[in-house]
Amino acid sequence: MLTRMSSLFLRTLREDPADAEVPSHKLLVRAGYVRRVAPGGYSWLPLGLKVLRRVENVVREEMDAMGGQEIQFPALLPREPYQATNRWTEYGPALFRIKDRKGADYLLGPTHEELFTLAVKGEYSSYKDYPVILYQIQTKYRDEERPRAGILRGREFLMKDSYSFDLSDEGLSESYVKHRDAYIKIFDRLGLDYVIVAATSGAMGGSASEEFLAESSTGEDTFVRGPGGYAANVEAVTTPAPPQIPVDGLPAAQVHHTPDTPTIDTLVAFLNAHTERTFTAADTLKNVLVKISQPGADEWELLGVGVPGDREVDMKRLEASLEPAQVELLTDADFARNPFLTKGYIGPGALAANGIRYLVDPRIVTGTAWATGADKADHHVVDLVCGRDFTPDGTIEAAEVRAGDPSPDGSGVLTAARGIEIGHIFQLGRKYADAFALDALGPDSKPVRITMGSYGIGVSRLVAAIAEQSHDESGLVWPRSVAPFDVHVVVAGKSAELLDGGEALAAELEAQGLSVVLDDRKASPGVKFADAELVGVPTIVVVGRGLADGTVELKDRASGERTEIPRAGAAEHIAAVVRQ
Amino acid sequence: MLTRMSSLFLRTLREDPADAEVPSHKLLVRAGYVRRVAPGGYSWLPLGLKVLRRVENVVREEMDAMGGQEIQFPALLPREPYQATNRWTEYGPALFRIKDRKGADYLLGPTHEELFTLAVKGEYSSYKDYPVILYQIQTKYRDEERPRAGILRGREFLMKDSYSFDLSDEGLSESYVKHRDAYIKIFDRLGLDYVIVAATSGAMGGSASEEFLAESSTGEDTFVRGPGGYAANVEAVTTPAPPQIPVDGLPAAQVHHTPDTPTIDTLVAFLNAHTERTFTAADTLKNVLVKISQPGADEWELLGVGVPGDREVDMKRLEASLEPAQVELLTDADFARNPFLTKGYIGPGALAANGIRYLVDPRIVTGTAWATGADKADHHVVDLVCGRDFTPDGTIEAAEVRAGDPSPDGSGVLTAARGIEIGHIFQLGRKYADAFALDALGPDSKPVRITMGSYGIGVSRLVAAIAEQSHDESGLVWPRSVAPFDVHVVVAGKSAELLDGGEALAAELEAQGLSVVLDDRKASPGVKFADAELVGVPTIVVVGRGLADGTVELKDRASGERTEIPRAGAAEHIAAVVRQ
Repeated sequence: MLTRMSSLFLRTLREDPADAEVPSHKLLVRAGYVRRVAPGGYSWLPLGLKVLRRVENVVREEMDAMGGQEIQFPALLPREPYQATNRWTEYGPALFRIKDRKGADYLLGPTHEELFTLAVKGEYSSYKDYPVILYQIQTKYRDEERPRAGILRGREFLMKDSYSFDLSDEGLSESYVKHRDAYIKIFDRLGLDYVIVAATSGAMGGSASEEFLAESSTGEDTFVRGPGGYAANVEAVTTPAPPQIPVDGLPAAQVHHTPDTPTIDTLVAFLNAHTERTFTAADTLKNVLVKISQPGADEWELLGVGVPGDREVDMKRLEASLEPAQVELLTDADFARNPFLTKGYIGPGALAANGIRYLVDPRIVTGTAWATGADKADHHVVDLVCGRDFTPDGTIEAAEVRAGDPSPDGSGVLTAARGIEIGHIFQLGRKYADAFALDALGPDSKPVRITMGSYGIGVSRLVAAIAEQSHDESGLVWPRSVAPFDVHVVVAGKSAELLDGGEALAAELEAQGLSVVLDDRKASPGVKFADAELVGVPTIVVVGRGLADGTVELKDRASGERTEIPRAGAAEHIAAVVRQ
Repeated sequence: MLTRMSSLFLRTLREDPADAEVPSHKLLVRAGYVRRVAPGGYSWLPLGLKVLRRVENVVREEMDAMGGQEIQFPALLPREPYQATNRWTEYGPALFRIKDRKGADYLLGPTHEELFTLAVKGEYSSYKDYPVILYQIQTKYRDEERPRAGILRGREFLMKDSYSFDLSDEGLSESYVKHRDAYIKIFDRLGLDYVIVAATSGAMGGSASEEFLAESSTGEDTFVRGPGGYAANVEAVTTPAPPQIPVDGLPAAQVHHTPDTPTIDTLVAFLNAHTERTFTAADTLKNVLVKISQPGADEWELLGVGVPGDREVDMKRLEASLEPAQVELLTDADFARNPFLTKGYIGPGALAANGIRYLVDPRIVTGTAWATGADKADHHVVDLVCGRDFTPDGTIEAAEVRAGDPSPDGSGVLTAARGIEIGHIFQLGRKYADAFALDALGPDSKPVRITMGSYGIGVSRLVAAIAEQSHDESGLVWPRSVAPFDVHVVVAGKSAELLDGGEALAAELEAQGLSVVLDDRKASPGVKFADAELVGVPTIVVVGRGLADGTVELKDRASGERTEIPRAGAAEHIAAVVRQ
């Protein structure tokens, strides 16, 4: 069915929206694809909905092809299943909670692990039923603290979530690989430039986990990669531990009076000025105090985090390491309540003496010697040796990751880039099967606990991710696989001849099986050309002055290349271009 | 892509679910189409989702064909637009309200008049932009007091809602007729037996209004129809008023001592025993007291409703007449607070004397004489003449409608039946355009206030409505237009030959462009036949013993007719049957 610009519910904007910072947000609003309705809530206008549906169908086709079965759950869900897994509490303020007219607790589903687990438990009982992969493409809700960048991070969004159910760890690995392969096909079909990185598994629990990130300088996720192929989300980077050093014969620790040195910089400067040795920040041990609260707990626990002094604590890495606990820095009031913490001069000693858990960066191994706080104002201790003078309670990945750090695979050094998370696959294991006792009766009549995988794709976010990678100064440049139309026919003039010519060509193009938008408006050619560039259909055909001489102009939106082609046979020619 | 029963996420049930009362609910659960997740919340399993999507696509195709443009709004909506139209309050407890992490008020959209109005206001400004018809197919939420009958009345459901925007009343009428025609096409394609009835417009405001009801004895809506084509929802039936009677010369009213006659029956029996005249219940005037509360008001107003004593007050009709006010019967405490109301003996006199508004059935016209309460225990008044002895404040449609009542079109008497509301179309008028000042700049540069129509189809409910009309004792019987598959191939045996034969035939059928489910399970033929009947695919093919002799059996699910057909050319033959 031909779409005519004269009646299409579309008004393009000349100006960027005031609240937009990233190109996809600016362009999707300016080109009339989406409109803001509330913080993190967008409406899809006709063009936007067409692109969204095309993306959705690519996802669906590949999910079906890999053997997934589509089902659909409600978005409004009862509390009980999420209570059973503790996610009702763990999800914290990001969960939209709601009471019905009878006062019963409900939530708007952020992901549906619980429901899928219960669904399989409800239908299946024998080992012969497995494996099974189920998925849905459904509107999801998360009460993001900072919704941003239009549809890139909304509070209501379309997501494909799938779940695999297997009898064994090997089966889970196979389901995981199936998903990984399907995701590769999906993102390739969508024309995306993406990278697969090692990831942490977030609040959903589980072990093996990878993220698909669309490379983009405006992405929220930072990742690193090494020359040997290693790639990881910054939260997932593991720090290689150096070899331990025998402590025998190492110099004894010495306390120094180091007035006015509450920072690493001032400490290093003081030591270099007042000792014979040369210190760098990397020789110092920085102890950062945080407080953490486990989900549902009313109390906060103090935690000491030790990192080499040349690195900051990366709060996102720290939070990922401590999930699902909440983490906050200490306030002045907290310090006042714990007078044994001497701000700027905290050392491992006071932590051990006061029963504070102390976790350190993996670089801080037995035998390494450090300059650190002496738990007394204006005093530090030098040559404090790990494993001799203090014993951490464990290690933690909390120090910042930097370009230039050694790649964990030993292949060289890491480089850093940014990306948009478009997919996430991970092996959940038996967390949810345990919560709901999901067992299959095995061939020996004994129960086999099912193991699960969980796999997500941000379908609405993909529209923005594609736009983020596919645009230029004039507007959007859609890949053919998701463009709202195959061809944009511009009638460059107001005469009846040109309009008839445009209508005729559009009809021929539709007869070729192409989807067409015809700009039949009474606007100037300049306005129409600008709108065509902005809207971003990959092939633009201009029906203009050349028509009288038997030609039309073909323009490739991506390359900008223009070609005069004969009007006779134009539809066949254009169909061949679109399908090439 | 071939669906195999051996891996399909489907387990049929032998027993009806305990909570199911209507056939569609029982069968959709037993045949594995839907599963209950919460009160009024259902999940769609693979078969159910296929049917739902097919219904959705029929709706979409006809909406597109009539010029509708599809868009999509969030379901999670800010309070403000609904506050502006007062629907935040008017919707009452049926609206799911929610607070976000910052304490801002949101709701889950029950219908989207406000958002569509704002969307058009945001994009359009000139009279040249109009008319426009926009629609969405979207999940909606209503906190029903009594969710029932599975997906027939859920709290989360899929709905098509569309809205027309016109410059004039004539334009609105045209948009209304377009929708009416499109709905007829849609429900015809879905194979439904339905009736179009006059309707009230409910909480959404507006004037002209019709409902599409799928006829069904289990339907929640009662409607009546006359021999001349008149059909109306019971709430919308209007009562023809009889001619007025001159009051001159009518007998004067007389008060009678009528001990122990608090009901119409006791009153009639007493009057017939103690007077020379013959009274029937239709000669008495029953006054029912209710209290009503306008949306957002804290106070309740008393209201007297007078109906002929041979009819009950129909609370649904009364509520429809008083929308959007809430209506409740008086409690004993209310009577105690208003001692001038003598329960069982209330007459028009006490109401007028105490400033209580009094509305009467349209049959109670000037000159009609009634036996009614005398506002004193054990006393009634006879020959109380309307327009002489009492003057009502107006009329109200509140009396029950009965089969046998005269049809308002004068064509004869009404008959009653029940139906399921599957569509509703109505002319909203300017209520929402007024609320948001939606104007177009006219050709004379003066603003023209837009007029709107609102049109809904219960998409998920349609699945149940079709099932309600299309089933037999063995299971579901889908119309071809929405069946989950075109053909159900049953392999009636466990031998490799039969299984190979089934696979080969299924592949040929798919090559014909048909969608196929193959029952390749290791179950008995009896189990497979029973499941095929239950699932309800319109054409069943049995690959069984006849295969060795070169035949397969074709069974029409609806008629039960069985035919042996040659295996050679079977796929073409079956394709012709499916497409006939």
